[in-house]
Parts: sequence; structure tokens; C-alpha cells
Amino acid sequence: LSGGTWLNGKLVTGNQQGISLRDRGLLFGDGLFETVRVYSGMPFAWPQHRKRLEAGCATLKIDCPLAEIERGMAALLQCVKKMQEGSLRITLTRGEAIRRGLLPAPGARPTLLITSQQGDPYPEHAYQQGFSAITVSFPRNHRSPLVRLKSLNSLELILGRMEAEAAGANEGIFLNLQGELCEGSVSNLFVVTDQGEIITPPVSCGLLPGIARALALDLASQQGFTAREEKISPSDLYSTSEAFLTNSLLEVMPLISLDGRAIGSGLPGPVVTRLRRIYREHVQAFISSNY
Amino acid sequence: LSGGTWLNGKLVTGNQQGISLRDRGLLFGDGLFETVRVYSGMPFAWPQHRKRLEAGCATLKIDCPLAEIERGMAALLQCVKKMQEGSLRITLTRGEAIRRGLLPAPGARPTLLITSQQGDPYPEHAYQQGFSAITVSFPRNHRSPLVRLKSLNSLELILGRMEAEAAGANEGIFLNLQGELCEGSVSNLFVVTDQGEIITPPVSCGLLPGIARALALDLASQQGFTAREEKISPSDLYSTSEAFLTNSLLEVMPLISLDGRAIGSGLPGPVVTRLRRIYREHVQAFISSNY
Repeated sequence: LSGGTWLNGKLVTGNQQGISLRDRGLLFGDGLFETVRVYSGMPFAWPQHRKRLEAGCATLKIDCPLAEIERGMAALLQCVKKMQEGSLRITLTRGEAIRRGLLPAPGARPTLLITSQQGDPYPEHAYQQGFSAITVSFPRNHRSPLVRLKSLNSLELILGRMEAEAAGANEGIFLNLQGELCEGSVSNLFVVTDQGEIITPPVSCGLLPGIARALALDLASQQGFTAREEKISPSDLYSTSEAFLTNSLLEVMPLISLDGRAIGSGLPGPVVTRLRRIYREHVQAFISSNY
Repeated sequence: LSGGTWLNGKLVTGNQQGISLRDRGLLFGDGLFETVRVYSGMPFAWPQHRKRLEAGCATLKIDCPLAEIERGMAALLQCVKKMQEGSLRITLTRGEAIRRGLLPAPGARPTLLITSQQGDPYPEHAYQQGFSAITVSFPRNHRSPLVRLKSLNSLELILGRMEAEAAGANEGIFLNLQGELCEGSVSNLFVVTDQGEIITPPVSCGLLPGIARALALDLASQQGFTAREEKISPSDLYSTSEAFLTNSLLEVMPLISLDGRAIGSGLPGPVVTRLRRIYREHVQAFISSNY
């Protein structure tokens, strides 16, 4: 058993069940998702994910079935006993199309799909090596409400990730319409200045307010770093001493190059290494406090 | 029987079959669609739709199973005997996710779903009344490759359409990043100048190259109109004498107001009425030539 699946109120076996051919998630990408990291069988930072999902549902005017989501998560974590390390993907769509066309009809029942994935998302050597990135060839629209939502409309991000792959890089970094650094296809971006300050672009630059991003900012501040939101230009990133990427699965991943140019020494630096340790210690404390 | 469904190589009965829970169309909106009008049981302008679908597949690097698509369309049109008037929606996704994450894995088999909808899409009185529209509150990113694709990422369009609905209007019109008129949530936009010229924004403004848009341009030229692509500002639209919207189901729909202000007389005008007649005559000729 490599994972389990919860669909609309019950546990189902992997590939036998399907989503309705009329689901608006499929037809229009009309829905949201969250990826929750599981440590020692426990969902991490769920209150923060829940809050973001609720905010997204409010924007899209989708009823958020919170109780059912929590019931499904608990059932999955109980059922998939072997899953100590892994993640849950919660996919929530507006449900079946009741009528033709884009406009949602009132009364649709949202479709809830939760799947579990087992295992550590990234191997340790990935962190020792660090990630390379390229700048994506087209900008994110920071004036669109979508950039702040974790929506099922991932095609721009996929195209950015494909550009990275074609260049042999791990991640594609988007600029916004003003040419400011924005975010990666699946990650938020941080730089470490020569003064040891930790900086990430504000949400107004057009990015997903990442759960790991907020946590990294908090933890860095608690540990005495100056950590703040500020616009970052590509030249800032080229000349910075260290940089890193965050998301709930990556945690804190050193970023060692952009567009083939080394960032700092081109190796994971001391500040990023320390931040990664701080993040891991926080995770350990979470695990301990829940046993 | 209100319609039929073709899924991955065979006709299926409406709601019993489902899409894989791991389909990238569902998880990421990773796919494309086309809506083809059916007149007298025959698909209209299929070569043009096919060409656009192939171009989109090339951009997304999805293998386009053209032969299977045409086999499915033919099977559906034969099976749904009663469908003289209606449409086919062809949905093509990248297929099942083979691995975790955004990056497509090579070797995925695309998912092909074709559904039929019966009946005339819009009643005659809709054309006599015309459509009202509002300007959507956020811009389309004309620098994104997505705006030229008929992709499954429809959430921005849905939000625009919901804004229109909330204002009691039929359609939401998007501006691009430069404040130029772009397109509606499901339609292309045309204006008729005081000199009787017919103008629509060029594709470079950030819009879907509509099949009905191209046809309307062609037919207008053939009938002696000056019809061309040119940028249109909101003030151009406010001061124009007539305007209209096109798509494969709407055909030529008079646009009678924007943001609560009447366009021209606020009634369907003579040029639009004539263009709609020309479009219908072209459809009749298509039907006759295929019998």
C-alpha cells in the first residue's frame, strides 16, 4: 500500500473509483488544493493550511466542508498505518457541473479528494547539493486574484517547471509584471544579504502565501535574525551571498544557482544550513509535543 | 438521452464512468478543450478547431490523438441520433500522473473525454435583446502563453463571469495589462465604428484566437465590410455605435451595454443584425453542402 484515498465521505481503494466526468475541477480547474506534510503520522501546520483553504474558498465562493476534510484526514492517517513520513494532498472542487458554461450554479456539492503519499519527499543529498533555478520566460500576473490562491489552475507553473527541466534546473522562478522576483513554480524564494538579513518578497508581489514561508520567517526572527518582506530584483539575487526556497515538502532548500550563475559560493551556505537546522528542530519539537 | 459521452476509446453511459483520481486534468488543470458547434448533426468548423487544439498540444507538449478524437466525434454523432442541433466538448488532458509533482513524466497517455450537449445553445430572444457586459476588475496577462490556449485553467474566466453575474450582466470583458480591451470570459469582442468598419483586438492583446472570431472577420470582408484587427480602448467601446461578441455557440451576439452604459442606441444595431444574418447564411450553406 503506497497510499490511501478519501473521496466524498469515504475511504476508497486507489484506482477503482473515479471522479465524475462532469466535475468542474476537471472541466475548468474550478477548485483548490493543499499539500500537508505528515511527520510521524501527524499532519503538520494544519491550522495554517486550513485557514488558507478557507480564504481561497471564500474568494471562489465554494462551501468549505471543514469537518469532512478533517474526518478524511484522520481516517487516512489511521488507515495508512505505515505512513509515518509523507504528505496529504487535499483537493476540493466546486463539484459537478449542474448546467453548461462557466457560471457556477448554486447548490453544487463540492468534491473532496484526499490522497496520501508515503515517504520523505526529498532525499538528504538533495539538501547537501542544493537546487538550481532558472528565470521563467513569462511573468506571473500579480494583479490576478489567482496568484494568491492554491488553485487547480497550475498550467503556468507547469510550463515554468518544464522550462527549468529543459535547462537542467530544479526550479523555475517567476518574475512579476514589474520584473520583481516573485516565487518558484512550487516554492517561495528567500535571499540572505551580506548583512545576514533574511528577505522574501511580500505577497503583494504576486505569490502564494506559503505555509513554510511564514514559518521560516517566524523561526528566523525568533532565532535573532532580521527577517522581513521586501521586494527583490534579479540583480539582488545574483549578488546575494545565499538564497533558499521553501515549501511544506522542501522545508528549507538551499538555492545555489540562477540561470547558470552561482549564487554566493555556489554551495549551501552557513545561514541557510542553520535555518534548515532550526526548521528541523521545530519539526522535532512538534513531533515530541504530540506524542 | 440528453447527450452522450466518449471516454478513452469508447462510448460510455453518462455518469457511471469516472476519470482517474490521478488525472492531471483534475489535479492541475493540465489539459485543453474545444467546444464544437453541431448543426444538423454535423460538426462545424472542425478543421479550425483541430488546428487550434494541435497548436495547444504542441505548446503543452501533449500528444494529440487526432484519429481517436475524430473517431469519438463520429461515434457520438451517430449514437446520439436526435442531436441535430447542439455541441461537442472535447476535453484532452495529459493523462494520469505517473509521479508526484508538477513536472509531466514522459510516456503518459492523454485522457480524452468528449461529451455532447443537445439543443440550440441560446434562444432567439437572446439575440433580439442583446448581451450586457461589465469590465472585469482584474486584467488578463497578455504576456502569459496561457491566454492563447483554450486550456482547462478557466478560473480567471469564471471569476470574471461571476463578477458579471453579480452585476446582473451577461458577460465580463477583460482588459489586458495595458488597459486595452481583450476578450470576454467566453467570447471575443468586436466594435463597429461610425464609418461602418468592423474591428476586433489582435491576438497579441492577449486573447483566445476564436474560431467564430476568425469566421466573422472573413465573412465581413467577403461582404464588403472593412474588417480588421486593431487595439480597442474602453473609451472606444463606450463611444462606438455598435458592438458584438462571438464564439462558436453564441455566433454573433449584439453587445448593447458596458458597465451599465448603453452602447450606441442600446439596441442591436443594423450592422450587427446584418452580420448575424450573414453568419447564419454561411451556416445554412455549410448544412446544404454536406447533405
